[in-house]
Amino acid sequence: MELVIGDKAYSTWSLRPWLVLKRCGATFDEVVVALNQPDTAARIAEHSPTGKVPVLKVDGETIWDSMAIAVWCAERFPDVPLWPADAHARWLARSVACEMHAGFGALRTVCAMGPEHSMVGPDRADPPSDDAVRQEVIRLVEIFRTMRARFGQGGSYLFGAWSVPDAFFTPVAARIRHYRIDLAEHGDSDGVAAAYVATLLEQPDFLEWGRDA
Amino acid sequence: MELVIGDKAYSTWSLRPWLVLKRCGATFDEVVVALNQPDTAARIAEHSPTGKVPVLKVDGETIWDSMAIAVWCAERFPDVPLWPADAHARWLARSVACEMHAGFGALRTVCAMGPEHSMVGPDRADPPSDDAVRQEVIRLVEIFRTMRARFGQGGSYLFGAWSVPDAFFTPVAARIRHYRIDLAEHGDSDGVAAAYVATLLEQPDFLEWGRDA
Repeated sequence: MELVIGDKAYSTWSLRPWLVLKRCGATFDEVVVALNQPDTAARIAEHSPTGKVPVLKVDGETIWDSMAIAVWCAERFPDVPLWPADAHARWLARSVACEMHAGFGALRTVCAMGPEHSMVGPDRADPPSDDAVRQEVIRLVEIFRTMRARFGQGGSYLFGAWSVPDAFFTPVAARIRHYRIDLAEHGDSDGVAAAYVATLLEQPDFLEWGRDA
Repeated sequence: MELVIGDKAYSTWSLRPWLVLKRCGATFDEVVVALNQPDTAARIAEHSPTGKVPVLKVDGETIWDSMAIAVWCAERFPDVPLWPADAHARWLARSVACEMHAGFGALRTVCAMGPEHSMVGPDRADPPSDDAVRQEVIRLVEIFRTMRARFGQGGSYLFGAWSVPDAFFTPVAARIRHYRIDLAEHGDSDGVAAAYVATLLEQPDFLEWGRDA
């Protein structure tokens, strides 16, 4: 099994399925394609039908898209609790993970990660002043606070124990840190959302990713 | 059970879970919120935590996002074959559905649906000349041709029998028709992709949706 990913310092999409595979205890090789190089497109094309990373190569098949890989993991590792066991929690876990998967375009664009904007480095950038980003961060804070309040009792992740949405929100947590976005200014009155972001940034698997970067 | 959707003439996101629920034989009420009205945002906010439609209200819960609703359907109606039974087909069905869920932004923006651009009306618009759209249509054609060739033997849908990706690609089929995009100019040398698009547009459930619009 082989996971083809981009630079660990800033390939936000790659991080998500990597975290899920780690949770599964999967043994896999990493193929890292350097992004933003003259031969990047050609190198990705050797692996990926979409021209994007990540892709997972397994059983002679190439599976792409971070969410599709996460769902493949749940199928292949049925004993690993990748989604909440409680039905209502599970339905909403899918809703928030899918909302992240298809949305938050302003945050991605304005608070881009790249060669000069690392998910894991000590360097920091100025907070954005963009209003669309502001609205998206307000929505993120609302998601974090609502889910932690309803389902967070059993642990410090979004639905208590770790689940797939935590993988999907980890790159966002890194953006919030890098761009020094103050969640208290976005509705996080008592720090519940900030504490959740800290939990994501302290995940042992994310710290390992950061050491590799 | 209640599905909150936008105008049937042009709410592309709403169409997807509606088609999946229909396939499940689910009994549900429709709540249609008129889009592009002064009170649209307020009316959607009564139903949806994201400010967007569709949402599904069931068992006292509000589930949002078209993909999350589709996956909920697979959980609630386990006897309905919403995803291909063959493992490799299923993995790729998820990949292409997720690729559609998170991608094809140029096509969505340039070939927007709206009050003057109906998914179901006889009116047609001029083809776009945008290069990003062209690249995305080439990719769509590649998806359609590759999956039909590998997995399409048992029927005329993308993976033979109907599956969730067909719901996700139906709005795209309607865009291709409305904007008179010639797939032959995008790599569909022998009409395989065009035939698949025609299959989507002739789905009985989509024709019903069109009559309601």
